[in-house]
Amino acid sequence: MRKGALEQNPSHQKTVKTFDLETYLKGKQQKVNAALVKLWEDAHTPPTPLIPAMQYSLLGEGKRLRPILCIAACEAVGGREAEVMPAACALELIHTYSLIHDDLPAMDDDDFRRARPTCHKAFDEATAILAGDALLTAAFEALADAGRRERRETLKWLEAIYLIARAAGCFGMVQGQMMDVSSEGKVISLEELKELQQLKTGALIEASVRTGALLGGGSSQEMAALGVYGRHIGLAFQVADDILNVEGKPEMLGKPVGSDQALQKATGASLMGLEQAKARAAELIDSALEEIKIFGTKKEPLAALARYVIEREK
Amino acid sequence: MRKGALEQNPSHQKTVKTFDLETYLKGKQQKVNAALVKLWEDAHTPPTPLIPAMQYSLLGEGKRLRPILCIAACEAVGGREAEVMPAACALELIHTYSLIHDDLPAMDDDDFRRARPTCHKAFDEATAILAGDALLTAAFEALADAGRRERRETLKWLEAIYLIARAAGCFGMVQGQMMDVSSEGKVISLEELKELQQLKTGALIEASVRTGALLGGGSSQEMAALGVYGRHIGLAFQVADDILNVEGKPEMLGKPVGSDQALQKATGASLMGLEQAKARAAELIDSALEEIKIFGTKKEPLAALARYVIEREK
Repeated sequence: MRKGALEQNPSHQKTVKTFDLETYLKGKQQKVNAALVKLWEDAHTPPTPLIPAMQYSLLGEGKRLRPILCIAACEAVGGREAEVMPAACALELIHTYSLIHDDLPAMDDDDFRRARPTCHKAFDEATAILAGDALLTAAFEALADAGRRERRETLKWLEAIYLIARAAGCFGMVQGQMMDVSSEGKVISLEELKELQQLKTGALIEASVRTGALLGGGSSQEMAALGVYGRHIGLAFQVADDILNVEGKPEMLGKPVGSDQALQKATGASLMGLEQAKARAAELIDSALEEIKIFGTKKEPLAALARYVIEREK
Repeated sequence: MRKGALEQNPSHQKTVKTFDLETYLKGKQQKVNAALVKLWEDAHTPPTPLIPAMQYSLLGEGKRLRPILCIAACEAVGGREAEVMPAACALELIHTYSLIHDDLPAMDDDDFRRARPTCHKAFDEATAILAGDALLTAAFEALADAGRRERRETLKWLEAIYLIARAAGCFGMVQGQMMDVSSEGKVISLEELKELQQLKTGALIEASVRTGALLGGGSSQEMAALGVYGRHIGLAFQVADDILNVEGKPEMLGKPVGSDQALQKATGASLMGLEQAKARAAELIDSALEEIKIFGTKKEPLAALARYVIEREK
């Protein structure tokens, strides 16, 4: 396991020996990637750059954190990976669309993402906007298609679509991005920053965990515990991102370090200071770990993923 | 009823006396508008321009053609308007998002829409991109929410979400817009233009009719007939749009006449000639009318709507 921002905190290394996260992540990433590749394998469409642009952004190197959290939550409550895979893919489609649109010239104007030209640089702006639109739409197509095929548990799938849409739209991720764009160059308070981050990144990460728990058939107690777990790791993820934006290695991040400062963006690291940001990330992960104790040995992937969220180098 | 591009063709005025389309449209528009206004009435979100921008574009003057087609199809098969209203709204949300994104500087770069500044002119480009994203997401939220509340007919709602997503994404509307953007300034064949128009405009209009028939509980025979009806009026709509782009009144269209020529866009009118385009629109409507004969007197709103699609002045 790679050493990250919080390696110096011994409480976050306790169970590294008992569960091999690297192997787990690799295995899950391969399965998610295989499912993503299949999505437009046999697609018959006019020969435009639309699907190539969608695939360019989707199939580049990615952590697949949201799909893996969804699968891990599903398996923690006793569900099967295959059942939840369409939802796991849908979450990655939504995440990818959000990256494409966030990188656009009118937004963050980023030229590189995951160490490759961003979608609007590799294609053009119109294609990038449309590729994002199509990925978002494809997410709901995948969810609805899985639900209508399963037939038995249709209500659960409708609940999942609702939960994901709610987390992704004007009450979640898109609202967070709107706050982010609006706050550039402005002074914002730590409270406003926390709300921004909860919406922009936390909401979809939390929804990933909740979706897995829901489709895996979790009890209401399990769902509640995983909801809190998801919320805390979602917040921790953004705090860790802020730390990486100050301390990370550009070759690992795939973008320049300090790009947030260049955009005059407030970050947790700039408002709280680095040390306090690290302490907050660690606290959030401790609370997340507390919640999943009820799963006994089944909690291991979720526990390792919680640590990974703040220990990652990119 | 206003006189439009095809007024000179007497076969399209036969039943004007038996059904008052203007009153019907006004009544349905009012109900759809009331439902759209309610969507974010009590929304508690951070004070950003996101929801104002969504509402600016959504609540401007609009024909509400897709919602009304959805409701009319539902009622033709014996369903109730209230049942299908969330789907009718979702279709308008998707249509509105597509207009906002199509108007962006990287796409058609339009400054006016429905006689008002376009979303990116009234707000800014980032806000317009995000408002579109949020409207698209809200459509699926509305559909899933309606389905999960109904509980009895959950499979039907999943089928509706699938059908709409399929028509709106890379196999439908977004692909059509991609073809449209890619074809600017290029020579395209009439066959390619027909495919472009079927995807860009026809697919969502057809899906609107199909969704109403599906959620209204139509039989497989009724669903098939309404599917063909929807396909034909979808195609006729775009042909009529091309004719209006040449012959329409700018004060009715809310944008300059001839804007397609300015963008060097191929249109049916430019590839077929105006007279042939008018004949084709009339033929498509005749085929659509043939399909709905099975509904007896219940077909009247659908028949009048089919004529309206090519007789409208905007």
